[in-house]
Amino acid sequence: MKALPSENDLLRRFESLFATRRRDVKVGVGDDAAVLAAPALLAVCTDALVEGEDFTSGTDPYLVGRKALNVNLSDLAAMGAAPLHALLTLGLPRQTPVAWLDGFLDGFRAAAREQAVVIVGGDLSASIERFASVTALGRVPASGPLRRGGGNPGDELWVSGTLGAAAAGLSLVLRGYRRDREGKVTAPHGRRVSPVRRDEIARLLRHLLDPRPMIDLGRMLAEGEIASAAIDLSDGFARDLHRLCRASGTGACVEREALPVDSGLATMPGLPSDPYDLALFGGEDYGLLFAVPPQRLRAMGKVAARFAVRRIGRLDATSKIVLAEGGRLSPLPDRGFDHFARDAR
Amino acid sequence: MKALPSENDLLRRFESLFATRRRDVKVGVGDDAAVLAAPALLAVCTDALVEGEDFTSGTDPYLVGRKALNVNLSDLAAMGAAPLHALLTLGLPRQTPVAWLDGFLDGFRAAAREQAVVIVGGDLSASIERFASVTALGRVPASGPLRRGGGNPGDELWVSGTLGAAAAGLSLVLRGYRRDREGKVTAPHGRRVSPVRRDEIARLLRHLLDPRPMIDLGRMLAEGEIASAAIDLSDGFARDLHRLCRASGTGACVEREALPVDSGLATMPGLPSDPYDLALFGGEDYGLLFAVPPQRLRAMGKVAARFAVRRIGRLDATSKIVLAEGGRLSPLPDRGFDHFARDAR
Repeated sequence: MKALPSENDLLRRFESLFATRRRDVKVGVGDDAAVLAAPALLAVCTDALVEGEDFTSGTDPYLVGRKALNVNLSDLAAMGAAPLHALLTLGLPRQTPVAWLDGFLDGFRAAAREQAVVIVGGDLSASIERFASVTALGRVPASGPLRRGGGNPGDELWVSGTLGAAAAGLSLVLRGYRRDREGKVTAPHGRRVSPVRRDEIARLLRHLLDPRPMIDLGRMLAEGEIASAAIDLSDGFARDLHRLCRASGTGACVEREALPVDSGLATMPGLPSDPYDLALFGGEDYGLLFAVPPQRLRAMGKVAARFAVRRIGRLDATSKIVLAEGGRLSPLPDRGFDHFARDAR
Repeated sequence: MKALPSENDLLRRFESLFATRRRDVKVGVGDDAAVLAAPALLAVCTDALVEGEDFTSGTDPYLVGRKALNVNLSDLAAMGAAPLHALLTLGLPRQTPVAWLDGFLDGFRAAAREQAVVIVGGDLSASIERFASVTALGRVPASGPLRRGGGNPGDELWVSGTLGAAAAGLSLVLRGYRRDREGKVTAPHGRRVSPVRRDEIARLLRHLLDPRPMIDLGRMLAEGEIASAAIDLSDGFARDLHRLCRASGTGACVEREALPVDSGLATMPGLPSDPYDLALFGGEDYGLLFAVPPQRLRAMGKVAARFAVRRIGRLDATSKIVLAEGGRLSPLPDRGFDHFARDAR
């Protein structure tokens, strides 16, 4: 395995790799800072992936690269912003094989291309563990951003995609399953897996390893002034709902049976017996959770015709977050993923 | 020692700590992304500090916090940009004492206050080693940014501050000297140091541990359209001069005797016998190296009256970077700090 060349050589390589002709980039990679023709309202966010915390050392670096950008674009999506630019800081052990860096950059650039994101800067440092710290910039529509705190009692709660698939994928990874960029699944210890089950494992692992940011949905909700509040689901449905409600100063009631629990949670052996455990408290779904005022429900119909979204409950004037099932209410605790919890994983 | 609270608690603390009323911040810390009223020309850069690479575990966290922001502001200074906003991503081991985080944040916020920088976002992750990855945003003047590549043959080369003090400070740190935020020096193994020497050690350590970004100088050079090219000195004078010349497509001739070699390099015992070794090839001076066209030398007089700057040589039409001394020329190699060199430190 070839190890990394000198920092100077790497930086020069990045300069040619990230060269751009886009006219909003006045100065790109290769100077002390980038210079951009910025939109009037700029959204900016930052999110890092750390080896051993956010990905295992055996993860296909192409997928790590994709995810490092896409988790940031998911934050932009939750604001209703259109992605424009990104900066990438990499921490790499000196013995990192060049192939790992190449794979990572291929994935990062592929994800950038998909959303017309230009990479305008970065930094490179030696480190003990691999990490990728990304900053993303985007354009907020003139109608203003989606906020966590814009919800009001009476607004309906909606969620995109399904819940719990990424958490199920994490459980599979912890049991030794792997998936590469082409979708090929490797089972632990040469275990035999039927083709049907293998496809389902690949799908659950895809949710964990290669989440897709809901950019178009976020933009439609913001530009059409349809949602009053939004958040992306990164730390688990329950925790992120608590955040949206805390910011909005509302309570919420969620219909348990309306929740789009991923279909794989009930059928895949080895997962917790109650699929709702993963759906409510598992993280990294990267769908959007958002609130829609009653008077915008007609416009919401157009959104529902285009995206997989589901109405799951309602904000209310209480200070409680509850689950409703057959007329019975139970509290939904503020529980989810926590980097600093001692038993987090 | 109290260890870190939960991530949720930390994030809430950051929200109140980084709350702002500045009107260009439409959405600050606490949502999925910040939303800013951006300047027409936005400078953006990112730079990370990693424990064991960029600071030792015994470094006063207040100074690490200051430096994490200031190395980024130094990059903005080299573009002639005025700092506006910053984002901070921290990787922290779970057993990090709360006091370390508090010290870091105090330092980061103090450096931000000094330059009217508002912290608008961030991320927090568990990690094996501590790291701080920062992104800084700034306003580029309407006259345009300073670039590395704007120099022309005949332009005079100038440098701010002195050279080599931070490298001398690093040599002291590696020998066990420490300096806290108040300037108090601790000598290794209870070694006795005279008060005069102690002051000099404190000064050299200050250059390494608490560099000051040359914001006002950079702005004056850009807004007055005085410099044709600029770069900040982060990886050593020689390496950064090579970068400026490569980008400008010029060579350069530097007068060895004109170089502002720091006065401490010749008098401090235990440093390399030739002070020029540290001055030319040591990193982290964080002054500005810049080129001034002959027709702007009168305007440059006003700069020289306000800042400690020195004329050190000239860009030329050769492809060589040389040192001149008493009529003799010797090549100045492209050597300096490299994160990925095996024997870097």
